[in-house]
Amino acid sequence: MKTLPKPLTIADVAFIVGGEALGDLAHTVTGVADLADATLSDAVFLENRKYTALAGTAPAGCLFLAPDLKDTPCAAKGKVIVDEPRAAFAKLVRMIDEHAKTKILPTHSLKSSIHGKAALGPNVSVGDFVVIERGAAVGENTVVMPQVYIGVNAKVGRNCLIYPQVVIRDECVIGDGVIIHPGAVIGADGFGFLTDKKTGKHTKIPQIGNVVIEAGCEIGANVTIDRGAVGSTVVKAGTQIDNLVQIGHNARLGRDCVVVSQTGIAGSTHVGNNVVLAGQAGVAGHLTIGDGAIITAQTGVMSDVPPKTVLFGSPGRPHREAFKLQALFSRLPELFDKVKELEKKLGASAGK
Amino acid sequence: MKTLPKPLTIADVAFIVGGEALGDLAHTVTGVADLADATLSDAVFLENRKYTALAGTAPAGCLFLAPDLKDTPCAAKGKVIVDEPRAAFAKLVRMIDEHAKTKILPTHSLKSSIHGKAALGPNVSVGDFVVIERGAAVGENTVVMPQVYIGVNAKVGRNCLIYPQVVIRDECVIGDGVIIHPGAVIGADGFGFLTDKKTGKHTKIPQIGNVVIEAGCEIGANVTIDRGAVGSTVVKAGTQIDNLVQIGHNARLGRDCVVVSQTGIAGSTHVGNNVVLAGQAGVAGHLTIGDGAIITAQTGVMSDVPPKTVLFGSPGRPHREAFKLQALFSRLPELFDKVKELEKKLGASAGK
Amino acid sequence: MKTLPKPLTIADVAFIVGGEALGDLAHTVTGVADLADATLSDAVFLENRKYTALAGTAPAGCLFLAPDLKDTPCAAKGKVIVDEPRAAFAKLVRMIDEHAKTKILPTHSLKSSIHGKAALGPNVSVGDFVVIERGAAVGENTVVMPQVYIGVNAKVGRNCLIYPQVVIRDECVIGDGVIIHPGAVIGADGFGFLTDKKTGKHTKIPQIGNVVIEAGCEIGANVTIDRGAVGSTVVKAGTQIDNLVQIGHNARLGRDCVVVSQTGIAGSTHVGNNVVLAGQAGVAGHLTIGDGAIITAQTGVMSDVPPKTVLFGSPGRPHREAFKLQALFSRLPELFDKVKELEKKLGASAGK
Repeated sequence: MKTLPKPLTIADVAFIVGGEALGDLAHTVTGVADLADATLSDAVFLENRKYTALAGTAPAGCLFLAPDLKDTPCAAKGKVIVDEPRAAFAKLVRMIDEHAKTKILPTHSLKSSIHGKAALGPNVSVGDFVVIERGAAVGENTVVMPQVYIGVNAKVGRNCLIYPQVVIRDECVIGDGVIIHPGAVIGADGFGFLTDKKTGKHTKIPQIGNVVIEAGCEIGANVTIDRGAVGSTVVKAGTQIDNLVQIGHNARLGRDCVVVSQTGIAGSTHVGNNVVLAGQAGVAGHLTIGDGAIITAQTGVMSDVPPKTVLFGSPGRPHREAFKLQALFSRLPELFDKVKELEKKLGASAGK
Repeated sequence: MKTLPKPLTIADVAFIVGGEALGDLAHTVTGVADLADATLSDAVFLENRKYTALAGTAPAGCLFLAPDLKDTPCAAKGKVIVDEPRAAFAKLVRMIDEHAKTKILPTHSLKSSIHGKAALGPNVSVGDFVVIERGAAVGENTVVMPQVYIGVNAKVGRNCLIYPQVVIRDECVIGDGVIIHPGAVIGADGFGFLTDKKTGKHTKIPQIGNVVIEAGCEIGANVTIDRGAVGSTVVKAGTQIDNLVQIGHNARLGRDCVVVSQTGIAGSTHVGNNVVLAGQAGVAGHLTIGDGAIITAQTGVMSDVPPKTVLFGSPGRPHREAFKLQALFSRLPELFDKVKELEKKLGASAGK
Repeated sequence: MKTLPKPLTIADVAFIVGGEALGDLAHTVTGVADLADATLSDAVFLENRKYTALAGTAPAGCLFLAPDLKDTPCAAKGKVIVDEPRAAFAKLVRMIDEHAKTKILPTHSLKSSIHGKAALGPNVSVGDFVVIERGAAVGENTVVMPQVYIGVNAKVGRNCLIYPQVVIRDECVIGDGVIIHPGAVIGADGFGFLTDKKTGKHTKIPQIGNVVIEAGCEIGANVTIDRGAVGSTVVKAGTQIDNLVQIGHNARLGRDCVVVSQTGIAGSTHVGNNVVLAGQAGVAGHLTIGDGAIITAQTGVMSDVPPKTVLFGSPGRPHREAFKLQALFSRLPELFDKVKELEKKLGASAGK
């Protein structure tokens, strides 16, 4: 498994993450693990209280804990008390990742196909069987892994990481520092056609827009983001998109959103900043979702959502209302019984 | 941005689309845009009444409007009144697309792998790193973009456009004029196995059928259409399939259907003609959906659907019933209160 | 169409599958078909009683039937009575498949890119435009079809079939006899980041784990299985995964599960053995699903599921309860009417 560049004592770890060390300060750890899988040489963290009991029995080298859990009984050799245990843990993960990472040399594979009129910045790496078409540009330090397709006039920024078998179609624009995971398709045609009212036949409307993904976004595996019918489909800076998400033509996602796996956002919908769309959520077209809204898993959004609203259910309702309705729904048998009882009584009392 | 072959006056535009011009007839437009993004040199259209107010303030060159919206206040330099504004707009889009489109020369890339026993029609274009296996055939004028895989004995029709990284597995048949978007997989094995009742172990049943997609269909990005277990999975002429849709083995879709993103249709289900399946709908296996039915978004179909029925909800119910039930569902708190009230009263009245 | 190695009489067929032959024992069949498409030279089977009437009219050569359906009127030339008709049918399908299958010669394409430090076992086949990175290993008899990507240090077992355009990222481990369908992505980064509470900005946490898929699993087209954040995402032996399924980081699926298309399983969830997740089901993170549980289609799982439970609905409830609630839900209009009626009566009786 991947390890730290060198073993760290619990005292070292506390120093690195800015926390308070307790227990066997000289004990060393060499790696990280999940609580359930850890050995005495692993650092672990506890945040989800679901796993508190596990911390009491699971062997571990060093346990990151928040101050309020300081006295949690734990089987680890030592504890490091820190405000954000997950962030502290991530610091070690990053050290391990930097240490273990394959350095990809910035070469252009001879087994790729780079058009003479494509523009590649300094230190760009192009893998085997990559196609970069006429007029495309790839910025400094970007890694284009094998079998990627970059279409005519597409622009990819600096310091991007484009994983194998990504398709970026013509004219699309990818900002700096964007990561695109395998199989994602950026800029396929939007779903647009005219339907003849008499014959029911569909005629395609060419989709002449593009996709613009701003800096610092991450796009999951096998995601599809359609190009605008005219104009752009836009994903603003810092937004994180999980696997198998669909984003329709001319949709706009704000900054720093979180879009969880298998969510679908239909065409021309505008999503604000810092919106969370949980797994398998669906949003109809031409809607507006306000900043900071949270759309819970499997929720169906059929009308505009005010800022900071939490929506639940299909059709989606504000979550307090929805939870109350679900609780009452569970009590329907009781309600039917009561009404039956009332009818009986009233039949009796009315019949008197 | 992409532009018209030459600037057009509003009078020209009205002539081209067969409409009535109003306003500054000599004003010229050079492109198209969405209402929200338009400049004075863009043609735009208004159809969704949600955007009527926007038309009053958004600058634009030429606004296409239906006769009943003729008097809508608008900030555009001129209007063109026409029965189908979106179709008129699409006419200009098509002109722009024809003008801007990269002409792909019908060459066979030397960096492709075309089997000696594959049959390519005249003017077929084969991109880099394409694989075309033994016995496969590709019809006249079809464009096979880079990194596509066409399996043994697969047949692709004439005038098709196969985008990068599509997989068409062995024996599958694609009709004329079909467009397949990146990452789509046609003809993967259906999900078929025998499960031992005692051990719970599964044994694969080979899937020896194929997929038949008829003329004029469009298949979205990262769609999966499984081959028949035996016989064919069929998509009939003119059906439009959006991204990330799943179609199970031996399903049959009728003509001119619309299947929106992330919908799943399980095995052996027969869908009629002109059926609409909205986003994230799911249809169980071995069902029949009648012609012209509409399955709304996120709906779950668990039994046969008569023609022209509109279904809503999971489990799906006819939409009038479903909407009524949803309205009553929202009023459950009120109902519980009323019953409580009745019980009180009756307790009182019965106790007299 | 694909045919049996040689024509078989109904007597032959009965002998092969160990059943009892009835009807024209000398009649021969050459292939298999679905009941609806069969000709007199096809073997067919009847198991789903929905199709019993069809068996009475559809021409066929040989009909496999369970003993309790022995006397079903049928238009086939003969019947073979057998305990498991679908398994008997599958036996013929397997004969046809073995006969028709293209033998792929175990050669390494000169148009592939195999790193000098990759280890390929005997009889491994590597297709065109495949990339196999440094330190990767592929076991004996495995077929790697064109355009596949196998990352640094990834291990693929023996007798595997890796279809075109699969991505197996670095460090992932695939067991013996695994089949992976086109477009599947194994080992993309999990969806993990830290969110700054003040700014709302997300910082990626490197995902340094891997994916382990054990022997005998089948992974559908365009599936995504994310690598562990630390440690492994695990799919245990014999589990069958359909198309477009998402499995989050550090999830663990037990043995011999069935995961139907478009299902999503969020991170760190542990699924037991022999669990069925039907189409479009969604499971939240950090949950436990017990052995033998069945999660029905479109169900949303938000809390732990005991073994052998059948769950239905979103949010998911035990199916008996859920079905009862759905039935009562349909009767809400009636309930509202009754309460109105009661109020009237009581108003009257109370008013006396």
